[in-house]
Amino acid sequence: MKKLSLLLFLATAIGFAQNADEKQLREVYTQSLTNGKSYEWLDHLSNKIGGRLSGSENAEKAVQYTKAELEALGLDKVWLQPVMVPKWVRGKAEEAFIINGEKKIEVPICALGGSVATKDGGLTADIIEVQGIKELEALGTEKIKGKIVFFNRPMQAELISTFKAYGGCVDQRYAGAFEAAKFGAAGVLVRSMSLRLDDLPHTGSMSYKDLAVKDRIPAAAISTNGAELLSMLLKKNPKTRFNFSQHCQQFDDVQSYNVVGEITGSEFPKEIMIVGGHLDSWDLGDGSHDDGAGVVQSMEVLRLLKESGYRPKRTIRVVLFMNEENGLRGGNKYAEVAKEKGEKHIFALESDAGGFTPRGFSFDCSDENFAMVESWRKLFKPYLIHYFEKGGSGADIGPLKDDQIVLAGLRPDSQRYFDHHHAANDTFDAVNKRELELGAATMTSLVYLFDKYGTVKPKKIKG
Amino acid sequence: MKKLSLLLFLATAIGFAQNADEKQLREVYTQSLTNGKSYEWLDHLSNKIGGRLSGSENAEKAVQYTKAELEALGLDKVWLQPVMVPKWVRGKAEEAFIINGEKKIEVPICALGGSVATKDGGLTADIIEVQGIKELEALGTEKIKGKIVFFNRPMQAELISTFKAYGGCVDQRYAGAFEAAKFGAAGVLVRSMSLRLDDLPHTGSMSYKDLAVKDRIPAAAISTNGAELLSMLLKKNPKTRFNFSQHCQQFDDVQSYNVVGEITGSEFPKEIMIVGGHLDSWDLGDGSHDDGAGVVQSMEVLRLLKESGYRPKRTIRVVLFMNEENGLRGGNKYAEVAKEKGEKHIFALESDAGGFTPRGFSFDCSDENFAMVESWRKLFKPYLIHYFEKGGSGADIGPLKDDQIVLAGLRPDSQRYFDHHHAANDTFDAVNKRELELGAATMTSLVYLFDKYGTVKPKKIKG
Repeated sequence: MKKLSLLLFLATAIGFAQNADEKQLREVYTQSLTNGKSYEWLDHLSNKIGGRLSGSENAEKAVQYTKAELEALGLDKVWLQPVMVPKWVRGKAEEAFIINGEKKIEVPICALGGSVATKDGGLTADIIEVQGIKELEALGTEKIKGKIVFFNRPMQAELISTFKAYGGCVDQRYAGAFEAAKFGAAGVLVRSMSLRLDDLPHTGSMSYKDLAVKDRIPAAAISTNGAELLSMLLKKNPKTRFNFSQHCQQFDDVQSYNVVGEITGSEFPKEIMIVGGHLDSWDLGDGSHDDGAGVVQSMEVLRLLKESGYRPKRTIRVVLFMNEENGLRGGNKYAEVAKEKGEKHIFALESDAGGFTPRGFSFDCSDENFAMVESWRKLFKPYLIHYFEKGGSGADIGPLKDDQIVLAGLRPDSQRYFDHHHAANDTFDAVNKRELELGAATMTSLVYLFDKYGTVKPKKIKG
Repeated sequence: MKKLSLLLFLATAIGFAQNADEKQLREVYTQSLTNGKSYEWLDHLSNKIGGRLSGSENAEKAVQYTKAELEALGLDKVWLQPVMVPKWVRGKAEEAFIINGEKKIEVPICALGGSVATKDGGLTADIIEVQGIKELEALGTEKIKGKIVFFNRPMQAELISTFKAYGGCVDQRYAGAFEAAKFGAAGVLVRSMSLRLDDLPHTGSMSYKDLAVKDRIPAAAISTNGAELLSMLLKKNPKTRFNFSQHCQQFDDVQSYNVVGEITGSEFPKEIMIVGGHLDSWDLGDGSHDDGAGVVQSMEVLRLLKESGYRPKRTIRVVLFMNEENGLRGGNKYAEVAKEKGEKHIFALESDAGGFTPRGFSFDCSDENFAMVESWRKLFKPYLIHYFEKGGSGADIGPLKDDQIVLAGLRPDSQRYFDHHHAANDTFDAVNKRELELGAATMTSLVYLFDKYGTVKPKKIKG
């Protein structure tokens, strides 16, 4: 009988806990959808500030704005964490032309982030199309030297995850110039990383690795329509030439900041959980999806926890990282300082995949912690959150990885993300208020559950 | 040993079947995403034809266009099914003003579909705000007579399904005029059925039921921003008046058509499966989401089945219904003719919830058939299709309901649907190509599975 009573007690207790969790999630979603702040914050970041490239005046404005907003929430602590960041400036607008005999056809391009400028008057050269870096070796110096290499491998439309399609192409953008320079190329042109056919070039980071400054060649992205046209003309006339001018410049590193706010834990203040996105963005649009959305959603997590009357047991921080796009200095700095201070991070959640309808999360964690997440599935079902899979979490929180922490990434619907990513149409009007708010509520729910139940510690191996 | 061999054989056979199904679905999604026709068809319907209100010239053009496109697919049969439809015409643009003392503030309105016009010079009257039909009774004739009744109950933002939020409000639009007329109201103004605050009025059907023609009062929708402003001004000054003019007119019924195409079944030609959307649309936008998307996705189902080399066992029809928006004459006619001919419909799938990322299906069917659907869940997982729930299927296929048929509705992500529904921004640019194509592939996959495995027949009750 005693055993039965205990079982009954436990079953009832578990029932109560689930019921309390259901209520808490319902409250969080209702608050976010009816009384949320995320959309208003994003409006300011996007429309009052705009594109926030590391080292720019706008990036500094975003630091000050988000710090002030976090202070207004009445968190336990808000502070700036200094970090030196690279400063790259696009300069005046790029120009590019396909030169087909007597005809010059203007096409939309943009310099890749980190690229050098073209020399005065721009670069004019023969152009050679390749489908990837591997082809360079076969072509060799003889066929590449002095030419512009045109990387034109498109994203694979048949992949359901557009991030997978991006992952399968982005080496052309990141390493194309470095690899082509080895064979004496004069410049590099990369098909924009987008699944849409349109006239918008998509920028993004590239690296010269250890290439000497004198050997660096200019690299630009061409719109997908431009790439299609160029490819077609090259097939008709292999003597087609290309001209482009860009005026970008790399400056010395400048001082910037991660913005951090904290609700100190009531029971386990030394167990730290963070939620974040990145404050910096590319300069062509206003960075609404990448990653204004993640920034305001992360701020909203702490606001929703406070508003719902929930008092976290653990310390919960919002971290707005600087310089994810072209250096990851903020993410690295945060992890470095945490290590120096001996802080124990048990959980980190990043939102950096756009402000679209949330579908779930990816997790980089132990099987035991993942099993706990799986047990929460039914709590998320009313909100159509169904995707709980192991996988990469996010660039900024990656440096915190150890064998204890749970790293998680919000996974919104990915279909439209690369229509806007790093392009001039990554703007506020492309964000749907409800989709953004659902993401914030979904993140808050996961943070609540991990705060309430903690993470599973790894078993100590007996010596 | 014999038993074991049989089990092994069966297990292997089931394995092969699953593998074949996986391959078929992969092929369907790949074809739709890399070589689809749905987006091109929608471009024509939306941009070359435009809004397709029943009885209009555009509706007739859409009939001819889709018939020709189905014929070009080389289906076994394509035909037009005659149906008489109502003809309502908006006439010249509506105008409306809030009259606040000396001040006149223009606000965006549109006549509700089926409404009468205002008399010459428009209707000017006192205005009274209510939150719903129930309030009318309490107010009574004394407070309503001669006034414009302003129905301002908003859609509930905290509901995750926007269709539920719509369902909770749309009685104001559909029956508001009929109910208010009972108390001598002079006209009706309804808050647009949208969760966004913007300047677009959303039309939609309304009914006077058995109200005599002389007693019918004009009914219009006001934009959500307009509704907010009007409500605020009314609170400040209950003597605020309202003026509006609309010039709409109901004509005699005209001849129109459902468009039907068929692949005749190779094994069970008398078992008919249909997939469809509705050809007609409201007149303010071009009807891209409602329901151009459903039309082209349904056409694409038959094309994808043909292209993938799959030969259906059962007869599969695409049905493009006329007059879903303001009469359902097409849906009723199709079911009527099917009954007359003694046709046996075992399955019907409708897409009429927008061309957004598909999440799954709702099913109106027996438990046995639903259990079969559940067994297919894992086949859909790679495509992030997770929603399989019992629920309403679709208006056009509803009249086919009996105790044998499986009725299904495609369920896309609903967050953005009512931003566009029945408004001027239901346009082609609001449809994402991949989202549309994923919907078509998801529908094709379900049709394939039901064709291959058939439906479960209800058990005969032994007499």
